[in-house]
Amino acid sequence: MLGGQVRLLQPLEGYRAGTDPVLLAAAVSALPGQSVLELGCGAAPGLCCLGVRVPGLRLSGLELQPGYADLARRNLARNGLEGTIWTGNLASPPPDMKVQSFDHVFANPPYFEAGKRIVADGSDREIALAGATPLADWVSCAAKRLKPRGYATFIQRAERLPDLLSAMSGRLGALELLPLLPREGRPPRLILVRGRKDGRAAFRFHAGLVIHRGSHHEEPGSQYTDRFAQVMMRGAALEFPAGRA
Amino acid sequence: MLGGQVRLLQPLEGYRAGTDPVLLAAAVSALPGQSVLELGCGAAPGLCCLGVRVPGLRLSGLELQPGYADLARRNLARNGLEGTIWTGNLASPPPDMKVQSFDHVFANPPYFEAGKRIVADGSDREIALAGATPLADWVSCAAKRLKPRGYATFIQRAERLPDLLSAMSGRLGALELLPLLPREGRPPRLILVRGRKDGRAAFRFHAGLVIHRGSHHEEPGSQYTDRFAQVMMRGAALEFPAGRA
Repeated sequence: MLGGQVRLLQPLEGYRAGTDPVLLAAAVSALPGQSVLELGCGAAPGLCCLGVRVPGLRLSGLELQPGYADLARRNLARNGLEGTIWTGNLASPPPDMKVQSFDHVFANPPYFEAGKRIVADGSDREIALAGATPLADWVSCAAKRLKPRGYATFIQRAERLPDLLSAMSGRLGALELLPLLPREGRPPRLILVRGRKDGRAAFRFHAGLVIHRGSHHEEPGSQYTDRFAQVMMRGAALEFPAGRA
Repeated sequence: MLGGQVRLLQPLEGYRAGTDPVLLAAAVSALPGQSVLELGCGAAPGLCCLGVRVPGLRLSGLELQPGYADLARRNLARNGLEGTIWTGNLASPPPDMKVQSFDHVFANPPYFEAGKRIVADGSDREIALAGATPLADWVSCAAKRLKPRGYATFIQRAERLPDLLSAMSGRLGALELLPLLPREGRPPRLILVRGRKDGRAAFRFHAGLVIHRGSHHEEPGSQYTDRFAQVMMRGAALEFPAGRA
């Protein structure tokens, strides 16, 4: 990942990390020396990308499935990173995790609600894609573990924007939405949403970030926009726009 | 309005209709013969635009302020339209309105919450811009007055997207978001959101509709895109994209 800067062990079968954890990690605006926690970190592709991009972070992750948690620990080590991976459920986090608070918490919650998919086979992959934990519990756990003024950052399918905003409202403030557009002029399939603990600023709806070059009038192609290529291939940060539009 | 198809009496002082009610009315997908209700119709610019675009509608409006309600009645007549304008509060609607249900309900709720603006002078204009009625009450009234499978359509500042979606979730289904972009690649200042009574489809986040030509790289200009010019100057419908993206 990141043009070879990050190398990952992944399961031969089951859920494998795609572009989403890379984008999520790029959108976490952590500064050197800060503490970060990923909920549902899987094999830690996000933690590895973030740790390689921002030096000196205190990295932590929580993962429900022991096999992925084990891979996460090995992947941190393989990438020269130190960190703590807890095996546990975010609805009842490990005591060691509950006594800590973090500058940033981030997550890529399962994209489907359990019971709402056609296929449900109880496999590891199924659990990674369609968790039994409601989105509100992900947000609630993130908010509780944040330091004052800390940021929670989520990536999610665009279809779940109302659920995600509802879960975040009240628990976090200064919400910001950054849609990810497959191409200019297309609807987003993925969204990045972040909020700030004790934030009071009004909601901000940012211009969509465009992934591929070319408009819908042209032939399909798969070339990244320059900005996206920087994020995916060179490990650049994916910054939420600053200041007022 | 609509290139001279609609002519309106408006107050010399106070709130005057701009482009927002025109866009809202254009986004209401009413068919000839259906019944429509606008909550907070003001001097009825939206009802007039909709009545002129779609013939044979049964037009109804509710307006809190008697002066605007009177203008609304005169504006319908001046544009050759028939309809009913009730003077009243949507939190306790007139009995005549409460016994009816509608194929479409639409509203342009005040853009600011009362008490959250710097200036609060209690004027008519102030009430039109910063109502005392919570957004949830607007949505609740709309949902109650809809026929099964009827549509509620709202236009609102982009900043209030979380509030609007929260208010709509649970009361309406099949929510759809259509952001209005000042230019391609810019963040939306306004959003159109609609929902369907008893709708069960997943939320849809549509590509933004672009108002002005030219990108942010070019000189500022004020020329409408072709699609927007059709809506604003020729009275065309502003359709939510159909089908799956």
